[in-house]
Order: sequence, then C-alpha cells, then structure tokens
Amino acid sequence: TDELVIAGRKFHSRLMTGTGKYPSIPIMQQSVAASECQIVTVAVRRVQTNAPGHEGLAEALDWGKIWMLPNTAGCKTAEEAIRVARLGREMAKLLGQEDNNFVKLEVIPDTKYLLPDPIGTLTAAETLVKEGFAVLPYINADPMLAKRLEEVGCATVMPLGSPIGSGQGIRTQANIEIIIEEAHIPVVVDAGIGTPSEASQAMEMGADAVLINSAIALAKNPVLMAKAMGMATVAGRLAYLSGRIPIKDYAIASSPLTGTVV
Amino acid sequence: TDELVIAGRKFHSRLMTGTGKYPSIPIMQQSVAASECQIVTVAVRRVQTNAPGHEGLAEALDWGKIWMLPNTAGCKTAEEAIRVARLGREMAKLLGQEDNNFVKLEVIPDTKYLLPDPIGTLTAAETLVKEGFAVLPYINADPMLAKRLEEVGCATVMPLGSPIGSGQGIRTQANIEIIIEEAHIPVVVDAGIGTPSEASQAMEMGADAVLINSAIALAKNPVLMAKAMGMATVAGRLAYLSGRIPIKDYAIASSPLTGTVV
Amino acid sequence: TDELVIAGRKFHSRLMTGTGKYPSIPIMQQSVAASECQIVTVAVRRVQTNAPGHEGLAEALDWGKIWMLPNTAGCKTAEEAIRVARLGREMAKLLGQEDNNFVKLEVIPDTKYLLPDPIGTLTAAETLVKEGFAVLPYINADPMLAKRLEEVGCATVMPLGSPIGSGQGIRTQANIEIIIEEAHIPVVVDAGIGTPSEASQAMEMGADAVLINSAIALAKNPVLMAKAMGMATVAGRLAYLSGRIPIKDYAIASSPLTGTVV
Amino acid sequence: TDELVIAGRKFHSRLMTGTGKYPSIPIMQQSVAASECQIVTVAVRRVQTNAPGHEGLAEALDWGKIWMLPNTAGCKTAEEAIRVARLGREMAKLLGQEDNNFVKLEVIPDTKYLLPDPIGTLTAAETLVKEGFAVLPYINADPMLAKRLEEVGCATVMPLGSPIGSGQGIRTQANIEIIIEEAHIPVVVDAGIGTPSEASQAMEMGADAVLINSAIALAKNPVLMAKAMGMATVAGRLAYLSGRIPIKDYAIASSPLTGTVV
Repeated sequence: TDELVIAGRKFHSRLMTGTGKYPSIPIMQQSVAASECQIVTVAVRRVQTNAPGHEGLAEALDWGKIWMLPNTAGCKTAEEAIRVARLGREMAKLLGQEDNNFVKLEVIPDTKYLLPDPIGTLTAAETLVKEGFAVLPYINADPMLAKRLEEVGCATVMPLGSPIGSGQGIRTQANIEIIIEEAHIPVVVDAGIGTPSEASQAMEMGADAVLINSAIALAKNPVLMAKAMGMATVAGRLAYLSGRIPIKDYAIASSPLTGTVV
Repeated sequence: TDELVIAGRKFHSRLMTGTGKYPSIPIMQQSVAASECQIVTVAVRRVQTNAPGHEGLAEALDWGKIWMLPNTAGCKTAEEAIRVARLGREMAKLLGQEDNNFVKLEVIPDTKYLLPDPIGTLTAAETLVKEGFAVLPYINADPMLAKRLEEVGCATVMPLGSPIGSGQGIRTQANIEIIIEEAHIPVVVDAGIGTPSEASQAMEMGADAVLINSAIALAKNPVLMAKAMGMATVAGRLAYLSGRIPIKDYAIASSPLTGTVV
Repeated sequence: TDELVIAGRKFHSRLMTGTGKYPSIPIMQQSVAASECQIVTVAVRRVQTNAPGHEGLAEALDWGKIWMLPNTAGCKTAEEAIRVARLGREMAKLLGQEDNNFVKLEVIPDTKYLLPDPIGTLTAAETLVKEGFAVLPYINADPMLAKRLEEVGCATVMPLGSPIGSGQGIRTQANIEIIIEEAHIPVVVDAGIGTPSEASQAMEMGADAVLINSAIALAKNPVLMAKAMGMATVAGRLAYLSGRIPIKDYAIASSPLTGTVV
Repeated sequence: TDELVIAGRKFHSRLMTGTGKYPSIPIMQQSVAASECQIVTVAVRRVQTNAPGHEGLAEALDWGKIWMLPNTAGCKTAEEAIRVARLGREMAKLLGQEDNNFVKLEVIPDTKYLLPDPIGTLTAAETLVKEGFAVLPYINADPMLAKRLEEVGCATVMPLGSPIGSGQGIRTQANIEIIIEEAHIPVVVDAGIGTPSEASQAMEMGADAVLINSAIALAKNPVLMAKAMGMATVAGRLAYLSGRIPIKDYAIASSPLTGTVV
C-alpha cells in the first residue's frame, strides 16, 4: 500500500493541516475530520500563551488518532526555535504521545512575508537532530539548502510554494521539482496553497505530502474546503501513481476513422 | 443539492468521459465505473463503422445508468454533423434511451489540431436545435461565439482548454472565465485536460462540468487515473462552493502572538 | 532586409500604434515619433464625430510618412462596419493617401470586454474584400476563424492577446502559435499587450507585427513607454531571427573545466 | 540620468554578459559590442587554465572600456572561491584595471543544476567583503539569504531566474519581486534568461540589471541576439520608469463614442 513514511512512522493520509485561524473550535474539529488528515501541526508558543483559538487544544482533537506536529512558529532565531521545540516535545507527552519527537522547525525573522532564515534553520536543525528530534524544517525552495538539511539528518524538507497565508499557490515549481528529484527524504509542500487544484498539482509533481492551513481555515466554508483539499490530495497522488499522458503539441483524435457512414 | 442540469435533465456527477482510446473494453468499463461519471460520449461514426474499440458498445456499459452523449467526431461540415446527429439519436433509441435528444456537436475540418469551425458549428447548431436536439457544441473558447450559440438555443457550450488529446491543460483560461461569467447555460470545459489539478482548476473557475477522455484512457493506469479525475472534479466543485481565500501579496501569520514563553 | 509586407505594401517597423486615449495631442505626436512606428490606426467614427482627442487629426501627424489604418471601432454589426470602412477610405483620400485601401475591421457587439463577433467579422470581411479593401480583421485567437478569413482574402489577421486596454498580456498564446504556424498572411497581435516584454514575446513567437495603443497612451510617461515598445518590438523580431537557445531541464556550465589552478 | 551604480562605480548599461560558450573569439567580440554592455564576466579558473575559448582574453576586449567582472565559476567550496577571487583581482590588475575589486561569487557544489550553496556563499562573502572586495554573489532567489548578504556588506545580490544555461526564463518571479522590494543594494537577475522578453520582464519587475551569457553565446546568431538583448534590457528599464498601465479585468474602449455618423 501507498503510505507516507516520516522518521519511520507511517501515515495513510498525505495532507497535513493546522489548528490556527479557524472561526471556532467546532469548525476546526469538523474541518480536521472532513479533511481526513492524520497529522495536525500546532504552534507551541500559541498554545503556551493561550493565544486565541489555542485554548483547550488537549480536548479539541482525538490525539489517539491525530499525530501532533509541534511547530516553532513565532521564533526568530535558532536558539528560540530550539527551546520551543523542546517545549513541544513536552506538550506531546502531555497529550499522551510519549514517542512523538517530531518538530516542524520554523525560524522566521521576517514579519512581512514570514520567510524562513536558511542559516538559522540549518543551525537549529543540526542541534535538534542531535537531540533526537525528527526535524521537519520549513524552508524556501532552495535545492542546495534542502540537500544540506538532508545531510544533517532531517526527517523531511518542507519547501514553501509561496508566502504563508498568501494563497498564491506554487510559485516555486521549478525549484521544488529539483528538490523532489534529488531528495531521499519526504518532500512536503508547505505554505501558499490556496485551492485543491494547487494541492493536486503539488502531489502530481511528486511531493510526498502537502501542509495546508489558511486555505482551509479562512475559506468561507472551512469544512467543505477541508473535504475538497483532502480529496484533491488523494487525487493528485493517484495521478502521480497513474502515469499522466505526455503533453503534445498537436491534437490526437479519439481513434482513426476507418470508414464512413454518411 | 448541487446538481448539474442540462436541458432539464439532472446529473449528480460533473465529470463526462468517453469510450475511445482505451487499451481494452474491460479497462474502459472499470475506468468509467471508477470515475463515477454519469455521462459518456460516444463517437457515432466510429460505432457505425465498427472502428477498433467501438464494437459491442451496446453491451459494454449499463445504459440504464449511464447517459449516452452521441458526438459527431469525424464530421468536417455542418451537413455531415447534422446527419450524424440524427444517426446518434437513433443509436440512443436502440440503447433504450428513448428520450435522449442530446448531441455533442463537433464540426472539425482541421486534422492537425482538431479545432472546431465556428461558422459550421453555429450553422449546424441552429438546424439541430430546430429539430429538437439538446445541442452541446464543442467550440474554441470564444465568448462571442458562445453567446451566439446560447442565443440560438444550445443546451450548453463546451469550450476547449487546449487541443484534443494534447494534455496541455487549460490554455484559454481568460476566455473561459468570460464565457462562464456571461453564460446562462452550463459551461463544460472540454479537451486538453491532462491532470486532476487541471480538472479541479476548471471547476474552481466555475465551470459546470468537464469532459475528459484521453487523459484517462491513455494514462499508464487508466482506472486509477479515472478515479483521480472523478475525485478532483468533485474537489474543484466543492472548492468553488466553499469560497476560496483571497490571494494576498504578503504573508498572514497563523495568529497574532500575544505573549512569549521563552 | 526584413520587411513587413501587408497587401503588397512594405513597412520596416513592425509596431502599429493608435491615436486614442493620450493625455494631449502633443504627447500623442511625440509618442508616435518615439515609437518609430509607421502605421497608426484611427477610429473613423471618432474622427467623424469629433470625439475628444480626435480633432485636428489631419494636421496632427505627417501623413506623408505615417500610413493611416482606419478602423471600424464602435461598430456592432457587419453592416455598420462596412459603411464605416467606406468612410475610412474617403478619410484616407482627404489625408492624401489616394491608394490607401486598408481597413482594420472591428465588429464588436460586446461593450464589457470589447470582444469581436466572429460571424459578423467574417461577413463584413467577405464584402469588403470584394469591394477592393485590404482587410485587417480584429479577431479572437481562433485558428479556424483565422483560416476562414485568410480564405476569403483578408490581408492579415489580428488576433487578440487579451481584452482591449486590459493590459493582461498574451493570454491566448497557444492559439496564436497555431494561427502563426498555419497562416500564409501576416499575423498581427492586437489588444492586451501591457509591457515591452509582452510585445517582445509576441514577436519571438513569430508574429509579424503588434498593435499597441492603451499601454502607451495611458502609461504615466507615454513618450518613454512608446520608445520602450518600439525597441522591444525590434528586439523580439531580432530574437526570432536569431534562433533562441533550446529550453533545457538541466544547467549547462559555461565551459568544461579542463584543469585547476587552486 | 539613469545609471546603474555598483560599489560606487557607475554604468549606463544594465546588461552584463560573459565570454564563455561562443563559437569563436570574433563572434564573442562582435556580440559584446552589439549588446552595448559595459560589464563582462570572466571565469578566472578558465582563464588560468587556458580552457577553450578563454585564451587571449587580455587582447580580445578593450579593457579600457569594458569593466571586467571576475567570477569564481568552478568553485565548490567557500575556500576555493576565496582563493579564486584573489586570483581574479590579480587578473584585473594585469588587464590594467588597478582599482577593480569586483568579484562575482559563485560557490557551486552541484554539477547537475549548477545551483549555489547558500551557506558557502555567505561564508565566502563575509571573508571577501572584509578583504575589501566588492562582492556580487550568485544566489538562489531566497529573500532571507539576500538580506543576510546585504547585511554582511555585499555590493549586489544576483538571484537566479532558473538554472544556468537552461533558458527556462524567470521561474522564481515571486521571490525575486520580494528581494527587489526589500533590497537596498542593486539586484541583478542572473541565469536562466533565454529571450529578450525575459530580459525585459526582469527589468520591468524593477531589477537593476541582468546578466546573460548562454542565451547570447549559444543562439544561432549570437551577434543579432546580443543586439536584441541589449535593446530589450533598455526597453524593460524604460518601461519600469514609464509606469505601466494597471491590469484590468474588463476592456477599456479607446474613447467614449459621443455621436454616430452612420
């Protein structure tokens, strides 16, 4: 069967979602369910500070079924991110996920585009890998950086399609294609996806998974959009496995006409 | 419920497929089933001449459940297309669809790109509408032609995304968007779709349906691709109904940080 | 030498411009000069009715050097366009261009997108060709319509890149490429070009000329933009003649390293 | 006047070219002249090793008029690049450019896509800036890396459009736009440009300059293409200064019709 394997852990869904930005907790719950995702990322700093929408997270989802991916959103330096990653591991334990050593590493000094710092990310990744984390770094779509991160032992790389929450879609396609071609670890397209067609496109390119938050949480109908994103992710993966037709300059008739009836 | 209505007839699926180009009849049957489509287009001339892959069509599909859409593929002039449309109506009756007056009108003098003739198509459409057909014309994505065809009473318009079988995707997006905005009849994106992301894209644009044949039939695994196309069509429709997030220049953080824990 | 030949008449410039929308007559004059264009299109109806910016056109440009291309803007039907074309011929004579039988044929029933009517355009073209006009029809980028217009004797075809004045660029590239490939008469990309890069792109695709009005007249600095458009049109033509490098998946180093110095 | 200023040095041309890959020295000379460029980059290692096409470079160009930009092509590590940069400075002196401290920094461990290493590039840049070089680093289009390089004192940043020599054009547009918006030093789009339209596009986006080698040297007619690239670079810059028209959804007629003559 076709499973996503990250740091030895198996998942049947290739869509990851988040918990932020939803209009309400019930809508978040229904959306997560509708998306059929198995991995949900949680901003550790927002939980710790009880930021709006992050209260009661322990009860909000069934952490026996949903795998938590703590993230270091809000960290501007490697040092901050390392500390928050450690807090995230404690948080996972409190939720009953004793063996959860995953961390979505975000080192983001920029507040306008929320773009990650390649140097700080690599530095933090090295440290966290040594501390036994399964590190999933959020990065610009830079193939050489992706290679470096793989070399230091990251569990995946998570190149961005376009700025977080922008809904611009995959504007780094050429570089993501190179990353996919060269990587020996899963490639998760993160940030920028706005529509199911873009989720499917990422999967058709050969991405191993996608992470989508804003496009679901901020849609007019989050639950319906969550379902759409879940279906499109599956559709894109099936298409990748199915072998698409080649792109041709000319038309191809449905079949040669062997005779005429008129 | 969200139904596609063409000439008063209701369909829950918004994906139409075809019967040509498949490696075998059983694979065609399984693909049609996997796609969950309800409308299958059939080339009348190819059936009448027993072209390869078109024998035994009467038995191949369950015409009690699948609505046949006879098409006039292979016709170079309005006159030919009109005659073949009439044959198609007879064919439908033989299959037990007594009230099936649908015809996918193709007037294609060009053999290289299989592009339709706007003048011949309009001429044939006028005649066929007067004869009581529900006419679904295959056209270039020309909004003024679409308007003319609506005015003479066509049941839908079927603008092409790119040449038949080319798999180039939707290369006429700007014009299709205008057609969708202006039309009062269903708009079906026909020809050129190569991947589920493109099927979803068409639906997200507000198309009422898509017709996909080559991209399924000629995929390495047609049955799997059929399933993917069916899912992507639904996903795109759901996204259209869900209200996508606006596209923004800048990033939007998941939530404001209200404090700090580190 | 590389000349544009339309209806037997030779031009060294491949950029056509217009006279409408400029902030003033002097800026129009300077822009036309800066663009180095040789063909300027004029809306016959606007001249006849002394619409703002169309007074004194006889004196505004040196019609001994600039070839006037009367257009039928504002005509909604074939009949109107035919009458206005005849008026245009008279207008050319008054300007001293006795042998000028050119007409840019526009049949535009649509006021929102200003898209041309394929049927009315073909009808008017047939009549005008018979009356001895050199007909340059403005059309949607429909290869089959272009072929029909060539067959009835048009001097060029002028497919649109996107709606007039929209500045959306060339959103019909796939169809324009087919038109260029199939046509035996000059292909002029008309409408939608917003930037020099788009003008150059049209020429690189093999278009014989481009017509640009709004993007020059409504730029903040029309004279400078006119110069830019003129240069880009030449650059694009030279590139077409120069034979571009093929697009490759991988990088190509500047030269093999044959040794090492460090 | 509109000049490009790098490290205090002024240039009127905004096109940089190279010396590699040309079919012959005379064609290189004519192409450089036709392009009207003022900066030509030279691979120090290829000169030192007398790689084919790099012999006699001292005599090949008029170094009293052309500013040499030594580059570190072929260097896989920061250390190598630093050594080659120093050699480049000596080379410039031998050519009579006593005050030339420029270096185009390339740290490229990857041989397939020739993509630069962000970490090694930053490391080498820091050292070279301290040694008094004007450093022009070749980078992936990563806005955060660009910022870091500006902070350590680089003279420009040179983000890539697509892999070197690939002719894929500008496939990193979104990120380059952010780099341009945020940078206080000149931004030079380097690598990937295949056509004049792409050169113009980079300049219209607000890039300060472009560097083009393969697309000229490997064109069928390099001299003509060089001229085209030079013109397009100017055209794109003029357009940037001219203020392009906004992109609109609907068409804008040339002028309101105030009356009717027919």
